[in-house]
Amino acid sequence: MAIKLIGFPQPPNTLRVVLTLNELDLPFEFESVTDFKTIKTEDFIANKHPFGKVPVLCDGDFVIHESRAICRYLVSKYQKDAKVVLIPDDPNKAAIVEQYLSYETSYYDPPLSKIVYQEIVNKKYGKPTDEAVVKQALEDIEKVLDIYEKVLEGKDYLTGEYSLADLLHIGYAQVIYTATAHSDIFEKRPNVKRWIDNLRNRDAFKKTYA
Amino acid sequence: MAIKLIGFPQPPNTLRVVLTLNELDLPFEFESVTDFKTIKTEDFIANKHPFGKVPVLCDGDFVIHESRAICRYLVSKYQKDAKVVLIPDDPNKAAIVEQYLSYETSYYDPPLSKIVYQEIVNKKYGKPTDEAVVKQALEDIEKVLDIYEKVLEGKDYLTGEYSLADLLHIGYAQVIYTATAHSDIFEKRPNVKRWIDNLRNRDAFKKTYA
Repeated sequence: MAIKLIGFPQPPNTLRVVLTLNELDLPFEFESVTDFKTIKTEDFIANKHPFGKVPVLCDGDFVIHESRAICRYLVSKYQKDAKVVLIPDDPNKAAIVEQYLSYETSYYDPPLSKIVYQEIVNKKYGKPTDEAVVKQALEDIEKVLDIYEKVLEGKDYLTGEYSLADLLHIGYAQVIYTATAHSDIFEKRPNVKRWIDNLRNRDAFKKTYA
Repeated sequence: MAIKLIGFPQPPNTLRVVLTLNELDLPFEFESVTDFKTIKTEDFIANKHPFGKVPVLCDGDFVIHESRAICRYLVSKYQKDAKVVLIPDDPNKAAIVEQYLSYETSYYDPPLSKIVYQEIVNKKYGKPTDEAVVKQALEDIEKVLDIYEKVLEGKDYLTGEYSLADLLHIGYAQVIYTATAHSDIFEKRPNVKRWIDNLRNRDAFKKTYA
C-alpha cells in the first residue's frame, strides 16, 4: 500500500515522521500543506484530524494522526522488515525506551516548544515575544539537560542503543540550532553535545534535513 | 516475580499505575511515599528516578519509572494473561489507541495539570493561586473537551472499546471531580459525561479509588 504523509515541510512535528520513515527506509509521497486554512476546513477536521492539525499519515485507506502515534504505528507495522530497531521486542528493553519517550513529552518538549512558539511562531505572525516566558523556559530546559547530561554519561544514545526515544528528541534540537540563538544549551554539555552530534550524523537525519 | 510500586497514594500519576495493575488483575505491594524528601535523596535519584519523581515500579530486579511508561510496560508484559485488552495486538487498532494516548499527553493533560497545580499544589504549600493561569487553562480544556464531545458521539470509549487511552484520562478527571469546583467541564457535555461515568463504573476503577 502507498504511504502518503500530509504536513508542513518544517520541523519538528511532520519531520519527526519523515525521519521515522527514512530510518525504516519506507518510500512515501509527501503532500505539503502550504496554506494553514487547508487543515481547518470542515472536510479536513471530519476526515483527517478533529483538532485540525498535521501531520496526518494515510497508509492506503488507513488514516492516522498525531506525530508520535504515527511514528509508533510505523514501527509496529514496518520495523520487522527494516534494518534498524526503534522499539525493541523485549518488554524490558522496550520499557526503557518508553521511559525516555516519556522524558521527551514530559520534560523536554514543553520548555522547548514554548521557546520556539515565542521566538519563531509569534515572530512569523507579527506578535511580540514574551521574554519572561522564554526566560522561564530556558531555566527549565537547562535543569532538564543537566539530568540528560548525567543520563548520557558514557553512552552514545539514551538507552545505549539508538531508539525512537532519541529520534523524537532531534526535531526541537534542530529548530534550536538552526532558528534560535540558544544552541549553547546543547553545546556546553559534553555528553548532550556528543548525543546530538550522533543523531545529526545518521544517514536518515541527513536525508530528512537535506 | 513480585511487583512493588513506589509512589504517592494520590491521583493522578501513581494511581494511574495502580489502575493499570488492577485492570490487569496483577497483585502488587505498595510503598507509599509520605515524605517528599525521600525521592530527592542521592540514592533515590541514582537508583530509582534521575528526576527524583514517582511512581517507580520494581518488577523483581527490573526498575522502571515514568507513569505512562510503566503502564505500557505492564501491558506489554502481562496483558497476554489478562482478561482485558488495553492495547490491541493489531497495528491499526493499536495506532488508533496511540492517537488518543497522544491526545491525553498533548491536549488534555497540560491544561488540567495547570489547574491542579494552581488550585491544589500551590494551596498545599501556602502559595497563591494564579487566577489568570487557571482562567486560560479552563478556556483551553473547554476547547479540547468540545472536540472530545464530537469524538465520543455514539461511543462508550474513545476508540469504541476500552483501552489504555481511556484509562490514562481518568486520573485528572477524578482530581477535578473530587478536589475542585470545575466538574461542570465534564458534566455539561453529554458524551463526555457518559464516557467519564463509564470509566468510573469499572470494577478496577472502584477498587483503585476505594
